[in-house]
Amino acid sequence: MLISKLVGERTKTAPSDAVIKSHSLMIRAGYIKLVANGIWSLAAPAKRIAKKIENIIREEMDAIDGQECSFPVVMPRELWEESGRYSSIGDELVRFKDRNGRDLVLGMTHEEAAVQFARDAVNSYQQLPFMIYQIQTKFRDEGRPRGGLIRVREFTMKDAYSFHVTQEDLEEYYKKAYDAYDRIFRRIGMKNFIAVKSDSGMMGGRISHEFMLLTPVGEDTIVICPECGLKENMEVASAAPEAYASEEKLPMKEMFTGSAKEIAEVTKFLGDIPAEKTIKAVCYNIKGDGVHTVVAFIRGDLEINEAKLKKVLKGEVVPASLTDSVLTAGNIGPVSLPEKDIIVVYDNSLRGAVNMVSGANKPEYHLKNVNEGRDFTIKESFDIAKVSPGQKCPVCGAPLTVENGIEIGNIFQLGTKYTESMKMTVLNADGKAINPIMGCYGIGVGRAMASVAEETADEKGLNWPMSIAPWHVYLCVIRPDDPAVKAKTDELYAALERAGVEVLMDDRAQSAGFKFADCDLMGIPLRLVVSPRAIQSDTAEIKIRSTQQTITCPYAECVDRILQIKDDMTVKIR
Amino acid sequence: MLISKLVGERTKTAPSDAVIKSHSLMIRAGYIKLVANGIWSLAAPAKRIAKKIENIIREEMDAIDGQECSFPVVMPRELWEESGRYSSIGDELVRFKDRNGRDLVLGMTHEEAAVQFARDAVNSYQQLPFMIYQIQTKFRDEGRPRGGLIRVREFTMKDAYSFHVTQEDLEEYYKKAYDAYDRIFRRIGMKNFIAVKSDSGMMGGRISHEFMLLTPVGEDTIVICPECGLKENMEVASAAPEAYASEEKLPMKEMFTGSAKEIAEVTKFLGDIPAEKTIKAVCYNIKGDGVHTVVAFIRGDLEINEAKLKKVLKGEVVPASLTDSVLTAGNIGPVSLPEKDIIVVYDNSLRGAVNMVSGANKPEYHLKNVNEGRDFTIKESFDIAKVSPGQKCPVCGAPLTVENGIEIGNIFQLGTKYTESMKMTVLNADGKAINPIMGCYGIGVGRAMASVAEETADEKGLNWPMSIAPWHVYLCVIRPDDPAVKAKTDELYAALERAGVEVLMDDRAQSAGFKFADCDLMGIPLRLVVSPRAIQSDTAEIKIRSTQQTITCPYAECVDRILQIKDDMTVKIR
Repeated sequence: MLISKLVGERTKTAPSDAVIKSHSLMIRAGYIKLVANGIWSLAAPAKRIAKKIENIIREEMDAIDGQECSFPVVMPRELWEESGRYSSIGDELVRFKDRNGRDLVLGMTHEEAAVQFARDAVNSYQQLPFMIYQIQTKFRDEGRPRGGLIRVREFTMKDAYSFHVTQEDLEEYYKKAYDAYDRIFRRIGMKNFIAVKSDSGMMGGRISHEFMLLTPVGEDTIVICPECGLKENMEVASAAPEAYASEEKLPMKEMFTGSAKEIAEVTKFLGDIPAEKTIKAVCYNIKGDGVHTVVAFIRGDLEINEAKLKKVLKGEVVPASLTDSVLTAGNIGPVSLPEKDIIVVYDNSLRGAVNMVSGANKPEYHLKNVNEGRDFTIKESFDIAKVSPGQKCPVCGAPLTVENGIEIGNIFQLGTKYTESMKMTVLNADGKAINPIMGCYGIGVGRAMASVAEETADEKGLNWPMSIAPWHVYLCVIRPDDPAVKAKTDELYAALERAGVEVLMDDRAQSAGFKFADCDLMGIPLRLVVSPRAIQSDTAEIKIRSTQQTITCPYAECVDRILQIKDDMTVKIR
Repeated sequence: MLISKLVGERTKTAPSDAVIKSHSLMIRAGYIKLVANGIWSLAAPAKRIAKKIENIIREEMDAIDGQECSFPVVMPRELWEESGRYSSIGDELVRFKDRNGRDLVLGMTHEEAAVQFARDAVNSYQQLPFMIYQIQTKFRDEGRPRGGLIRVREFTMKDAYSFHVTQEDLEEYYKKAYDAYDRIFRRIGMKNFIAVKSDSGMMGGRISHEFMLLTPVGEDTIVICPECGLKENMEVASAAPEAYASEEKLPMKEMFTGSAKEIAEVTKFLGDIPAEKTIKAVCYNIKGDGVHTVVAFIRGDLEINEAKLKKVLKGEVVPASLTDSVLTAGNIGPVSLPEKDIIVVYDNSLRGAVNMVSGANKPEYHLKNVNEGRDFTIKESFDIAKVSPGQKCPVCGAPLTVENGIEIGNIFQLGTKYTESMKMTVLNADGKAINPIMGCYGIGVGRAMASVAEETADEKGLNWPMSIAPWHVYLCVIRPDDPAVKAKTDELYAALERAGVEVLMDDRAQSAGFKFADCDLMGIPLRLVVSPRAIQSDTAEIKIRSTQQTITCPYAECVDRILQIKDDMTVKIR
């Protein structure tokens, strides 16, 4: 391929909303083009990468006996009503009508289609287990698409569905899928990724794992124990419970605290008392419930984990508006709290709390020496706290760390949610109809590409791993107007292509520096330079993008040398 | 792959609406599964075929310098408003709103996306010509999906767009694309296909060709001159004009014809006069025009070609309702025709018409000896006639034939319709901004698959060409419970797979006949049988599905022999 014919301009600047590396660089290098909010076109180099990622995924899915199928993007309402998701999923599911007024949806995931496909095709336990998968376009009407290909509305996804007779069989297969995911991410050149136990959310199953690329720009938060290796998504992570130091219960009394409302203001007002000695109140409304206000109480140094609170309340929560409320915003406490239309949720951190400061439910006043069991009583408490760095690991007690990550893949043990609701049965060995137990396994292709870019890019540009690079070699022709140079590069180009090396040739009438900058920006792993000077010494120069190593190589050995470097740089698993 | 693990049931019967071979057999062989009207899931064997077709298309597109990109399925209204198609396309374009109330469409073709992608990426004539293409899901809300994968609503399509500075350059490239299409269809194993000049319809260009598989079940009609090779879609085809025999103009007179209204009734009533001596009137309304009635006059033995009439009227036409009309249905003629709100269109066939029978515009009466130029005058006439078999070729005068075909691909010279409306310019050699001239080139992957099935299937089932067969070999294990058989087949299976031969192994505890029937139904090109008897003679039996030829082959030579047959059966182009 000649870069002069490649459609897609390389530019010095990216749009101002491109705040993360992969987003900015993939635009600047001419890989992606915005069509609408969260909807992108891929230029040829990005499409080449996507195909290589897809092929690696395909090989690993086939290796665990996957059967590649194809389910439709557009599905009828009836199918999604069978599973109950037509009504249970919110605005992210696009619903529309066809010319005859029939309701259709755009697939954001394909459990329904997979079950509809399999339920008539399979009758007997002997046909199980099996796994069907596809690599297909999906649409999810994300509220806030961002980060280039990291969070989009339209995306290409590999989604796989396995069917099993027993939970044991599912678990055995789940482990295989877990290992296949590990191989996929390593083969596409990712390094700093982990698998974490996750909240399976709307997928409705039990055990699930998210594969996360650890990076400061990730929007997921992961709790990690460096000691015992525990890894959990913040949404479900817990720290070990901490007991209160034993201490004499002092008499409760009211204090004027004026305009101090936030924990930081109150502790400062009271002469820098520790936040652990305060009780924080956070108020919410449950979506769809216009009557009640939820007051969540938690130790003052901790934060509410809304994902956990949501589960306790079995509903979506939104920050409460306290205008016209019986509650005194900023001065809410568990003692003498108004009861009408109030739902109180206590975090476990307040069990046995001694001599705390809390709101007095009275403007400009707090209470001091509030004691649980004496001044207020917790009948039931929950774990609704976010883990903070330094809290203790619930397994081994070591201090926990908190990191950010991008979710690059997920695997779920779905159970029988879909096979039951959609009435898929097979006959077991005793001739009895049972609902197969399902697993499902997803990887977004575009997000994987952007995540690799995010991990590997440097200040000069993108930096693709050999296994997924759009081209292996960027062939820089210095002085293409020199007939000797032209002849040598044409020869080299042909020889490399014959040897299976993919070459992007730059024979533009531009300076060496200009070409080198484009090569670095595009992130091609190897740069091969042919110049009049090199020809005189019968050599060419190979530069490795990732290590910056430069090799002066006899011209005749270039192809073999590049094949060797290419092989060395490809992650091998088997 | 083991057939016992393959998801997708083979059945003896197909749904009653499956009236064409490919539709019925692809369901019966477990290749496809209906999800909604015109929306299908592909099982693994169909997906394997689709991927092979896609790869052949990809190779041929890359060979004519195509750059594979990816444009989105979902696009914003604004993009389609730029080209004017948001309003000009009817119900087949799906329009919907996202969660924020923004209008989106589902891509049924991607001219807009291709121009939006290219217009910022290309500035200079030196970057032209180029061709960008994708293989992507599309949705077209067809009024009448039918024929399995032949006419669907959701489909995978290869669509390509080329950009040129001059018309000559487009024409040169167009020829290359034409040849690439020819190679693609030959390589996927199609035989009886032709390229015909077509009506480019809503694509808005000028010269275009449709590639047609000739088959009685095709819903397109093609006019062919067996003598000079002229091939045209009925929608645009013309026959050579025919002059009226010179004859004395007789006096016009009114005749009572009673209830005779249709041409056949009138000619019979008048004692079997030839239909060529009558004038037929066909009435239409123009869609969206609630006032006028169109009366199209044509020689009685000919039919109106509505595609041509549509072009003359520059609007969609629908059969007119003549209730409450000033027209006398069944007795309409060109003499003394009421004029108010009537649009008259004459076909060329009536120029110089002599002594014709026509309606008298009076219930139960016709006129005899009606002469054009004397009794009514044609100021302007058009070619609005369908060609009938036996009419003369406009090029060489030989009698024309009419055949049916399935449109399997199309290529268009688009001109500047999209680059003008969407304001894409490049600077030409003189530094002047010009609109590039476009070509576009489409192939539906699923339709290509079904068309091959339609052409190759026989009474026993499908019959895939080697190049796109889901597996090359169906390995029938007769008596898999015999350890010697099991050992030999496992060895053979492994050896074949190592040699790059794709094998579907049938080791089910079923009779040979049952397995052979499945093999024939699925259409795997080679059947390899290992049985206890064959093992005794140290042979295996190879049967070629398409020729029914049976080869008894020494066991040790099986792999080589199959590789040879596979190679012989693969269409080679280069």
